[in-house]
Amino acid sequence: MLSDIEIANAATLRPITDVARETLGIEPEHLVPYGHHKAKVDLGYLATLEDRPLGKLVLMTAISPTPAGEGKTTTTVGLTDALHGLGHRAVACLREPSMGPVFGMKGGAAGGGYAQVVPMSDINLAFTGDFNAIAAANNLLAALIDNHVHQGNALDIDVRTVTWKRVVDLNDRALRDITVGLGGVANGFPRQDGFDIVVASELMAIFCLTESWADLKKRIGDIVIGYNRSKQPVTARELDAAGAMTVLLRDALAPNLVQTLEGAPAFVHGGPFANIAHGCSSVVATRSALRLADIVVTEAGFGADLGAEKFVDIKCRKSGLRPDAAVVVATVRALKYHGGVAVADLGEEDVAAVERGMENLRRHLRNIREVFGVPVVVAVNRFPADTESEMEKVVDLCAEEGVQAFAATHFADGGDGAISLAKGVLSVLDEPSPHEFGFTYDDDLPLAEKVATVARRLYDAEGVSWDAKAERRLARIEAEGYGHLPVCIAKTQYSFSTDPALRGAPSGHTLHVREVRLSAGAGFVVVICGDVMTMPGLPKVPASSRIDLLEDGTIVGLS
Amino acid sequence: MLSDIEIANAATLRPITDVARETLGIEPEHLVPYGHHKAKVDLGYLATLEDRPLGKLVLMTAISPTPAGEGKTTTTVGLTDALHGLGHRAVACLREPSMGPVFGMKGGAAGGGYAQVVPMSDINLAFTGDFNAIAAANNLLAALIDNHVHQGNALDIDVRTVTWKRVVDLNDRALRDITVGLGGVANGFPRQDGFDIVVASELMAIFCLTESWADLKKRIGDIVIGYNRSKQPVTARELDAAGAMTVLLRDALAPNLVQTLEGAPAFVHGGPFANIAHGCSSVVATRSALRLADIVVTEAGFGADLGAEKFVDIKCRKSGLRPDAAVVVATVRALKYHGGVAVADLGEEDVAAVERGMENLRRHLRNIREVFGVPVVVAVNRFPADTESEMEKVVDLCAEEGVQAFAATHFADGGDGAISLAKGVLSVLDEPSPHEFGFTYDDDLPLAEKVATVARRLYDAEGVSWDAKAERRLARIEAEGYGHLPVCIAKTQYSFSTDPALRGAPSGHTLHVREVRLSAGAGFVVVICGDVMTMPGLPKVPASSRIDLLEDGTIVGLS
Repeated sequence: MLSDIEIANAATLRPITDVARETLGIEPEHLVPYGHHKAKVDLGYLATLEDRPLGKLVLMTAISPTPAGEGKTTTTVGLTDALHGLGHRAVACLREPSMGPVFGMKGGAAGGGYAQVVPMSDINLAFTGDFNAIAAANNLLAALIDNHVHQGNALDIDVRTVTWKRVVDLNDRALRDITVGLGGVANGFPRQDGFDIVVASELMAIFCLTESWADLKKRIGDIVIGYNRSKQPVTARELDAAGAMTVLLRDALAPNLVQTLEGAPAFVHGGPFANIAHGCSSVVATRSALRLADIVVTEAGFGADLGAEKFVDIKCRKSGLRPDAAVVVATVRALKYHGGVAVADLGEEDVAAVERGMENLRRHLRNIREVFGVPVVVAVNRFPADTESEMEKVVDLCAEEGVQAFAATHFADGGDGAISLAKGVLSVLDEPSPHEFGFTYDDDLPLAEKVATVARRLYDAEGVSWDAKAERRLARIEAEGYGHLPVCIAKTQYSFSTDPALRGAPSGHTLHVREVRLSAGAGFVVVICGDVMTMPGLPKVPASSRIDLLEDGTIVGLS
Repeated sequence: MLSDIEIANAATLRPITDVARETLGIEPEHLVPYGHHKAKVDLGYLATLEDRPLGKLVLMTAISPTPAGEGKTTTTVGLTDALHGLGHRAVACLREPSMGPVFGMKGGAAGGGYAQVVPMSDINLAFTGDFNAIAAANNLLAALIDNHVHQGNALDIDVRTVTWKRVVDLNDRALRDITVGLGGVANGFPRQDGFDIVVASELMAIFCLTESWADLKKRIGDIVIGYNRSKQPVTARELDAAGAMTVLLRDALAPNLVQTLEGAPAFVHGGPFANIAHGCSSVVATRSALRLADIVVTEAGFGADLGAEKFVDIKCRKSGLRPDAAVVVATVRALKYHGGVAVADLGEEDVAAVERGMENLRRHLRNIREVFGVPVVVAVNRFPADTESEMEKVVDLCAEEGVQAFAATHFADGGDGAISLAKGVLSVLDEPSPHEFGFTYDDDLPLAEKVATVARRLYDAEGVSWDAKAERRLARIEAEGYGHLPVCIAKTQYSFSTDPALRGAPSGHTLHVREVRLSAGAGFVVVICGDVMTMPGLPKVPASSRIDLLEDGTIVGLS
């Protein structure tokens, strides 16, 4: 089989104006073109659609993944292509890729195989400039903070408490922990600082949760950058930063429209981390898509314990959006992994291990149906090594849970490989839901109780323990009036527990909270359990070393 | 009079596809649109024009400026509008603005008054993403350097000698002098480092001097990032960085087309500093413009002793381009300033001071005509406080030199205010040149002799003195085989000498060289005389505090 970029480079793309008109009924004058195959949809036009009925919203989530990933993005694209092929007005809503992994190890994030969004290299490299706009606005605020201190510090900012970091959209470990302002009086006051990758920034989360320019400016103003010497929060508003930062994000807020390899429309917009942020593409894109299409397929990061939880408890809570169905992506590989098989042996048939590993998937299904109240189907994303017996076992085990499961081969076959999955999703959408949608916890629970509720209801943890410092920080955040916010739990994606080695469906464990951070502009409190990497590093042989430009302008080596 | 952004926001822009077709004969399929009023011109299309005859090239340069600037950009736009109005196929080639001054103090750089390129706010803010692409490529190389050292340092890079800095397109003094790689083993090896503003990067200079993707990749590969422990240069090529960096710059290399307020075409592409780099917009844009138009007006940074010198000795030498005429922008203010008037008193009529200050302009005219061999006219950019007697004096004094001078009021009047200037330029272009084009020095002179020649011929300096370290560095660069490169002299723009307080036309002074840097990819040796700021800071009240987004999406407060 060809590589992702070979497939993408060989594709004949249609003008995005044609795709927009024919698939979503958007006339060219409502598009802001970026070249011939990417466009932003004008926000003024989208505002005129507010009276249209909403389409159905399908959430793509997953089993607790193996390190290789189980294929949520490809399944989102494949399902959308299948629905498109069946004549439905369907659209995918995806996150924008970060350039960090593109040049590092993991590669791009525009799908893969025959389930990709295109133009693949554009989408993976700077795209329409959204991440650069976010980085510029983020770094302008950082510069304004240090400048404010340098110029007299009228707000009496305590530089030891500044938590607002600078960002760059690359993997660059040397920037994790730095000292700035060295070199004498002209260069400001020295302080410890660091860079995060842009997708880990609070501004990225804000961007993805906001509804409008006015709301964006309000949220940016609410950002707490640190504290003054009287221990009061200092906001971006007090630094007169919100207006200019919003101006920098003005054009970026319009959602980006591209096409799949099969000509279905896709919004690719925003891309926050799924650990210290909520891991979903933008509310603007989802909401716009729901006004334009009958079925919207959107993915949330990591496994369902993290991604679906944050989709429901953060994105849906704040936006009023509601999923009509969820698809859980599972693989035979992941099931065997949770059934105890070593990574090196995952290519060997092991039906018993699949059966053992089902306990992981079973808990995700329970959470989605019983906690979130969302109807669910399983997509078994088929890999070449998977055997018939293994595939059948997954389908049978799901049936025992009363859940339909469908083998999907979209990676190799495009939309045709996801036709039965699509029909399954349609059948669920047609039926009245047996469940009532609900959040994991209510707004008015104390923050610690919110964490405890998620740990108990979703992770089957026995309890929560707190580092003393984290507990104090939580109390202070509550005292400052942020207790009504939802929590955003950052933990490993590989286990329901905080121990990535604890596969399957562990019970009775303790969720240990190491650190708490306030994201006042995004509107959530980050609860960090375990190590969280907000600035990745490059591997020994970075992917960038294989990427090249041929003399005719062809890009090679992207993955 | 309205502010720049009020004028720009009130303008009715034509679709850039119409401007391209009607003014330059470019069909829409050869454009890569960025919205409806900005486009890149496809490089493949431009390559098909190589057999077309070249238009005439007019270089816009200036008297040694006052701190307020004398209006080269507005005069470039005004002259282009006037030529356009007179029915000529004229195009302006301008530098892209950096966001640093936009949010700092100086404001944007898209012209001013009724001599602007539009869409003004787009051009001043990220535009088509070129600077972000340059920053990403620059910072990828920086990350690859630190990663290489972290992963075993097979090239034996001496981290103390790494000169490749990271960049950001903001004014951020706290990043001038930093320590990176702190925090322990996982974060790499600590070293002293710093950020420059993106326009000060060697990569920006490379971008503006390159001819094609292949040439770009070659030049990037040639970049010397520092030295190994055996004191041999280490290049970006050895770090396997050139391919991925070129990929990041692939789309950016196509020139950006916009329009003036009067509908004339303008290429706005690239924008290197005029001190440590050569200060001109891209060769790709100039060359393309010359194939598409009859007259191309392009500006070079600072006064003619720096900007025109680098345009000739670096840009023309490397590209083969030749200016057919030069326009020197002078103002009554600047002449009085060089005549010894204090900045606070420049608003008062003082014809005698104008006469005294003429010695500055006279030397620039001599240099352009006698050293570069380029025919010249003077544009007297009129300010409201200038009196008739002062204006007449300038015209008369220039006439004594055998140079035509024209009052220009394009800032207030648009192209109509530059009609007589345009006619003067046309008359010069129509006549055979009495001079022969020449460089200030030959390639094969030793580097120190090149510097001495510029100092003697253009600055009327008595000699050159060298810091011992700079002298050693120069010898080493020469020994490494870079002696054939031109020199790029970084000195104050306010004087022919290195003392900004020495106005007029000082003679007999000594050019003191403090530092020498190799820009092997750009292809010049930077010779630093005096302080050079490569990362500006923000003022006490940054311009960003006045910039805001209204609810309808209107940007206000840009200047």
